[in-house]
Amino acid sequence: MSRFLDEKYASLEAYVPGEQPQDRKYIKLNTNESPYPPSPEVIASVNDSDIADLRLYSDPECRILRQKLADRYDVGYDNIYLSNGSDDILNFAFMAYCSDGKKVAFADITYGFYKVFADLYHSDANIIPLEDDFSINVDNYCGINSTVVIANPNAPTGLTLPVSAIEKILKSNPNNVVVVDEAYVDFGAESCLPLLNKYDNLLIVRTYSKSRALAGARLGFAIASKEIIDDLNRIKFSTNPYNVNRLTLKVGAAAIDSDDYFMNNCQRIAKTREKTTNELVALGFDVIPSKANFIFAKAPEMSGQDLYSKLKEKGILIRHFNKDRISDYIRITIGSETEMEAFITAIKEIMVGN
Amino acid sequence: MSRFLDEKYASLEAYVPGEQPQDRKYIKLNTNESPYPPSPEVIASVNDSDIADLRLYSDPECRILRQKLADRYDVGYDNIYLSNGSDDILNFAFMAYCSDGKKVAFADITYGFYKVFADLYHSDANIIPLEDDFSINVDNYCGINSTVVIANPNAPTGLTLPVSAIEKILKSNPNNVVVVDEAYVDFGAESCLPLLNKYDNLLIVRTYSKSRALAGARLGFAIASKEIIDDLNRIKFSTNPYNVNRLTLKVGAAAIDSDDYFMNNCQRIAKTREKTTNELVALGFDVIPSKANFIFAKAPEMSGQDLYSKLKEKGILIRHFNKDRISDYIRITIGSETEMEAFITAIKEIMVGN
Repeated sequence: MSRFLDEKYASLEAYVPGEQPQDRKYIKLNTNESPYPPSPEVIASVNDSDIADLRLYSDPECRILRQKLADRYDVGYDNIYLSNGSDDILNFAFMAYCSDGKKVAFADITYGFYKVFADLYHSDANIIPLEDDFSINVDNYCGINSTVVIANPNAPTGLTLPVSAIEKILKSNPNNVVVVDEAYVDFGAESCLPLLNKYDNLLIVRTYSKSRALAGARLGFAIASKEIIDDLNRIKFSTNPYNVNRLTLKVGAAAIDSDDYFMNNCQRIAKTREKTTNELVALGFDVIPSKANFIFAKAPEMSGQDLYSKLKEKGILIRHFNKDRISDYIRITIGSETEMEAFITAIKEIMVGN
Repeated sequence: MSRFLDEKYASLEAYVPGEQPQDRKYIKLNTNESPYPPSPEVIASVNDSDIADLRLYSDPECRILRQKLADRYDVGYDNIYLSNGSDDILNFAFMAYCSDGKKVAFADITYGFYKVFADLYHSDANIIPLEDDFSINVDNYCGINSTVVIANPNAPTGLTLPVSAIEKILKSNPNNVVVVDEAYVDFGAESCLPLLNKYDNLLIVRTYSKSRALAGARLGFAIASKEIIDDLNRIKFSTNPYNVNRLTLKVGAAAIDSDDYFMNNCQRIAKTREKTTNELVALGFDVIPSKANFIFAKAPEMSGQDLYSKLKEKGILIRHFNKDRISDYIRITIGSETEMEAFITAIKEIMVGN
């Protein structure tokens, strides 16, 4: 920290991304990336002339991709907003709706970035504990006259809420934005997209990083009322209008053109998730029922930290959060069938002390 | 704007980027892009396996490129910060050093985004008029106990300050950051890089968008003391850690590996700039002596708006700012030799009423 930095940032605890070690090859089951590459259409979508055209700015309004997403999700062009990853959208939402003492509510166990944003913008954060089984008690979010942020499926648990529960929250907080972070929705949860026409306070946040296998392209989108989309654009055009680069716009469009490929992979990952869950349960693990591309599980007789370390020694990276209530758990990204077999084999070895 | 948006953003006037019309092909001399493509090495740097690897997150610390830039500019790894374009860095600098009533000084005629950032973060902005000849009076910035932001060369004038002038500002404001926006420095101005070791309050901002012909890749970097770099990283990791995508990191590294190509093109553009300047002067234009990849010029007997419109009709886009003091001027990006010949021909036609 420099001696010039505004003191209000002095105590900021930044988000800690999952580790990306460069020292050796790991089976990476730690950052919820896809085990499958993007579609052949995506890979073919960038050619030398696109690289040459990098001399030109990207379209700050992202018009072509915006229309494609509007068509894909059967909403208006004005209901779509594009940005540099979904973190970027969440960042703007906190800035727009809950800075400087305005209220925001989210769970104690959820995506860790919500708390970082709340600290950054000095929101009045109401951090609501999940129930003992890690489920969300919807009543805690009803009629609280506060911006609400819910990850559905939640991370790192993988648990989901039905659309009817989200609707209760939306209906009972009509003067506040309800942000539904659907980063993992394509792996088997219900999207609250059908509520869009009924609630102008609904802000759905999506990402290309998980189901569309483009984490490294940095692309997220929001679906919401025209007015909320206007807010996000207002902030984008006041901070960094060109925040989505030309190549990302191209691969993002090609991904929508080959959407079946990605949605099939989501089903494949869901199948591997069920198989891995069953195997862990058979080994005595407590596994939270997940609809995401990861599972959250507790070993019968080992701390989360221990299991993390022993797996890392064996060349397998998973995520462990050294945090109250969940320090006994590990979060395992669903990899390919082969990777998950290697993972189960490693777990078995560790359990017998090898 | 939605009914939920924090009222402090209600009056925000976003930055207006140069137009990117899709209706027809123009000779684009309006957004200071390079007329020359990136180097063959850059074009060869992205292959199918890089696109396939987009399933993985980018390195949020940008380690490889950071080291390459440190070597290129003969500074430490800890003196380099990478971000999603230089606007992103300027945004973070305003957030870090001059939000909520803290003072910031910049010129009345300069890069339009500074005022947008000052409004966004509610800085106490001291907007200092340029002299009548558009030069900066350095004394206005000395000992003012304020964050200072200076574009060098300035935009849209192209005028530069010598390093000695920047040093006076740095020395006389030891408790404030002096941001030197060197977006255009490679086209013939003096960089204040040699001052880095002497002043811990110097923050140099650079971009790949101009001299390195990668506007559409979104890549900017900062060079500063380790402590200032830490501040920028603190904000990046609290907002959007992965803001530079994988392909941009690759092309950014390949550009440094083939730096001679780009620096030669800068000289070529500078030569075209001198030739175009001479031709405009011969036609009676008032041309501000520029060290950037654009020139700022006033026609003998025509308003800037008129000239802009007539050039657009002829398929040539230039930038006109409808703003006090400069509304008679147009800003012309230096294109290729051929493009500038077409521009001069068009100007001649317009001047004789065709």
